[in-house]
Amino acid sequence: MTQGLAASQGALPSSMDRPQVYTWDPNSNSGKPLFVLSEKGAAFDYHYIDLLEFEQHRAEYLAINPAGTVPTLIHNGLTFTESTEMGEYLDAVIPGPRFVPDDPAQRYAMRLRCRLTDIAAESISVIGWNNSLGPMVRSKSPEELERLIARIPTEERRVSWRRASQASFSEQQLADAQAKVVSYVRELDAVLAGSPWLAGADFTLADIATFANFYSLPLSNPDACPEADVPHFIDWLRRIYARPATMTTFALARSIATRAFTVADLLGVKSPKDAS
Amino acid sequence: MTQGLAASQGALPSSMDRPQVYTWDPNSNSGKPLFVLSEKGAAFDYHYIDLLEFEQHRAEYLAINPAGTVPTLIHNGLTFTESTEMGEYLDAVIPGPRFVPDDPAQRYAMRLRCRLTDIAAESISVIGWNNSLGPMVRSKSPEELERLIARIPTEERRVSWRRASQASFSEQQLADAQAKVVSYVRELDAVLAGSPWLAGADFTLADIATFANFYSLPLSNPDACPEADVPHFIDWLRRIYARPATMTTFALARSIATRAFTVADLLGVKSPKDAS
Repeated sequence: MTQGLAASQGALPSSMDRPQVYTWDPNSNSGKPLFVLSEKGAAFDYHYIDLLEFEQHRAEYLAINPAGTVPTLIHNGLTFTESTEMGEYLDAVIPGPRFVPDDPAQRYAMRLRCRLTDIAAESISVIGWNNSLGPMVRSKSPEELERLIARIPTEERRVSWRRASQASFSEQQLADAQAKVVSYVRELDAVLAGSPWLAGADFTLADIATFANFYSLPLSNPDACPEADVPHFIDWLRRIYARPATMTTFALARSIATRAFTVADLLGVKSPKDAS
Repeated sequence: MTQGLAASQGALPSSMDRPQVYTWDPNSNSGKPLFVLSEKGAAFDYHYIDLLEFEQHRAEYLAINPAGTVPTLIHNGLTFTESTEMGEYLDAVIPGPRFVPDDPAQRYAMRLRCRLTDIAAESISVIGWNNSLGPMVRSKSPEELERLIARIPTEERRVSWRRASQASFSEQQLADAQAKVVSYVRELDAVLAGSPWLAGADFTLADIATFANFYSLPLSNPDACPEADVPHFIDWLRRIYARPATMTTFALARSIATRAFTVADLLGVKSPKDAS
């Protein structure tokens, strides 16, 4: 499950220093380190962890991240497991363009946005589980599913995966989650009406983290983002889809994030596929 | 409700630059900016917001922070409302000793610890509401309480305050919260067995944020921290209580955080009161 990726620029001095990223598709938290490294033009090793096969709960993976979450980054012998904070680490240590603003007030705005996006991502995740991931997972037999869930290391996450695999969200939970997504997209649109990027004049980790969670919305949840209602949000999506690093990253997708190419088409963004 | 505090050092060039802190006692999130500013030896204005009088839901306060949360920091015309991220902002802009490590891996450790402490603080808060804040709030008449709760700006927080004011946590919720606190204190103890401070060799925002949530534990929840079980945690509390800035900050307490002097006595730490 290892795939070496050597970008044409930014090779690091020793193999010891080459970031090792263990994660799923470039989607939600899994996407954050992949987008940052691609934006840096950095060489890294991508170890694909197939969430649909519950590979994040296999002993080999738990040996490097006992909580069984994705992503995990290993760099210079150190292990990093929180995707938002991992972004700041990678930004500081990997050469290339910077995605953390120099100005302390803008850094605050960036971190606040990352935190708010992490909260909104919980609602995105409820809907995603119900509509996408749940059906994918439920293609397995109940016995196989129970066997896979039984090895999840914490009770809290066993409950989440069992609920998700049984599609047991209530109508009320789904309606609440949808209302929160709609409200958050309107909030993003209002921010983007006042500045080109989420934390001000520059593209930052706030844009990367938010895009990683919201890139599929026009396809997966069009009711949450009609262009007439949230034009600045849709324009922001288009501008990020048009960044070369975005499509380099989505080219790594093997599963859920392959939908990004459909979204790019929907938005009328020229993708690398068109260019070939 | 404004109290001017002019420390003897660190006065800033103009009144425009003097941080304005709107918050309750130095306790939990409210404590974070107060401890940081005291550690910096910085001059700031402290606007006391009495949570027990629900002053955070008064129109004057909602005008500066519509969410009605504490703390709020106003500095150079900008408003900051997230206490963890506020700490990094203050550290960057206020002269004096630094509490964010230079090394990116240590910064990651610091931010990860702040995040984990924020999660653990939810369990601390359940127990605190049940044992301390709830009884304080319930000294009001039911009519007065309902009037105060009705003006809370979000339904989510109206529910929380109503539950807290009615002490309606279940036995199971309280037991789960206590188990999480016990487990987190053991985790802190294990970290402190390996390094003097929570993010390594230096005292950082991780120590400040965690102390702000755990300073009262030997008094308010002694079962969670017997010295025989968590000696490094207790030693860490003693070392923070012994810092001059800690007692300067607790001297601002008018309500719940006055218990800090009792805790200092319990721990055998000489407080500024003893020195006078």
